[in-house]
Amino acid sequence: MDTKDTKHSIEVCFSPALYGLHHNPESVVVVIDVLRATTAICTAFINGATEIIPVGNTEEARLYKQKGFLVAAERDGNTLDFADLGNSPFNFTPEIVANKSIVYSTTNGTQAINMASGAHKVLVAAFLNLSAICNLLAAEKRSVVLFCAGWKNKFSLEDSLLAGAIAEKLIASGTFKTECDSAHAAMDLWSLAQSNVLDYVEKAAQRHRLRSKQLDDVLEYCFSVDITEIVPVVAGNKVVI
Amino acid sequence: MDTKDTKHSIEVCFSPALYGLHHNPESVVVVIDVLRATTAICTAFINGATEIIPVGNTEEARLYKQKGFLVAAERDGNTLDFADLGNSPFNFTPEIVANKSIVYSTTNGTQAINMASGAHKVLVAAFLNLSAICNLLAAEKRSVVLFCAGWKNKFSLEDSLLAGAIAEKLIASGTFKTECDSAHAAMDLWSLAQSNVLDYVEKAAQRHRLRSKQLDDVLEYCFSVDITEIVPVVAGNKVVI
Repeated sequence: MDTKDTKHSIEVCFSPALYGLHHNPESVVVVIDVLRATTAICTAFINGATEIIPVGNTEEARLYKQKGFLVAAERDGNTLDFADLGNSPFNFTPEIVANKSIVYSTTNGTQAINMASGAHKVLVAAFLNLSAICNLLAAEKRSVVLFCAGWKNKFSLEDSLLAGAIAEKLIASGTFKTECDSAHAAMDLWSLAQSNVLDYVEKAAQRHRLRSKQLDDVLEYCFSVDITEIVPVVAGNKVVI
Repeated sequence: MDTKDTKHSIEVCFSPALYGLHHNPESVVVVIDVLRATTAICTAFINGATEIIPVGNTEEARLYKQKGFLVAAERDGNTLDFADLGNSPFNFTPEIVANKSIVYSTTNGTQAINMASGAHKVLVAAFLNLSAICNLLAAEKRSVVLFCAGWKNKFSLEDSLLAGAIAEKLIASGTFKTECDSAHAAMDLWSLAQSNVLDYVEKAAQRHRLRSKQLDDVLEYCFSVDITEIVPVVAGNKVVI
């Protein structure tokens, strides 16, 4: 554990393929997949879900479905044929998710959650819970890894922006520091984007993917800041609150 | 090969660990290791070297030394005991390198050059030859991968800045486009840094490493723009001009 009188370090990991370079069993890891997995997970809990079981591969998700679970599963933005829900936060309505356990498998986000499971604690972040995440990280008093799920191991702008927003808040609090180039880059990108994030993300590849599939109704919602105090956390093989 | 009437694509690869996602045998790859390998390679050719043989591991470099080659080899900034030269561009003086073949092994840059060798063409970039690189890329009329060598697979600010500077010039030329989030990020970081790059890189981890080892005399030189028209290019297992 970090000592009391030292500032805690922040690292930003831009891709699951780089996570091995940042993994530290003593760190708190924050998983970020703004468009759309971690935004959808926060939404599920806002709307009363009791737990989420992230699964990496679609076959495992299919087996859960056969056992009677409510299953959300997508690849490349498309809801899988056997699944009850896809990856849109708007799928996770109170009518559907309240008091339910949900099995969830996505292209990037749920796999990142499972990769991070060896860390001291794993939190799930979205713009929706930005301040709540930062408050919890400040209370943890540990080094932090902001883990961007990206897109099939590639760097993604929107995840980097949220990492930058979190890093900036933590450093402004006075108890964190960073010597990580990725963290500096993420904060600088956030400084350019924050006055109009929706305009900024017009150039993001995932923005184009969602538009081309007519799945971009969620855009404004996914960049809504601080609409919840909920911070989902990994406990064993589940995400809970 | 890209068709005549289509703009050529630009991708930026932030780490050797991500290169597999960007590799395309039809692309021209530009290897970037500003502090200091690719700057040193350009300097060697400016000062009259005839060819550079990049080798990945230090044992191979040692074997070349035993055969009588002039060897430049460093790890973590430190010149290896058996080597004639380290990684500082200032080591590659005309007196030492003119008309010489140089074997070169570094922590990041020379390994990236070897990784990229399956591409259509591999060029070596520094701020020193920024415009010359862009002119050559424009003449190639092919897709481009700007390959940042980084630091032990981690993202590095200074390499990303040069990638951003190259991408910006190519797009401004009107014959290139990008749909790559890393390229957008690199250009945005360059837009923040370009008015005073030396100030900007004060926060870079490699800046701190070089300062702590008193190897930072090269800083101003490494960010000098357009002091040469030379563009080193990979030919077989050598870099030539």
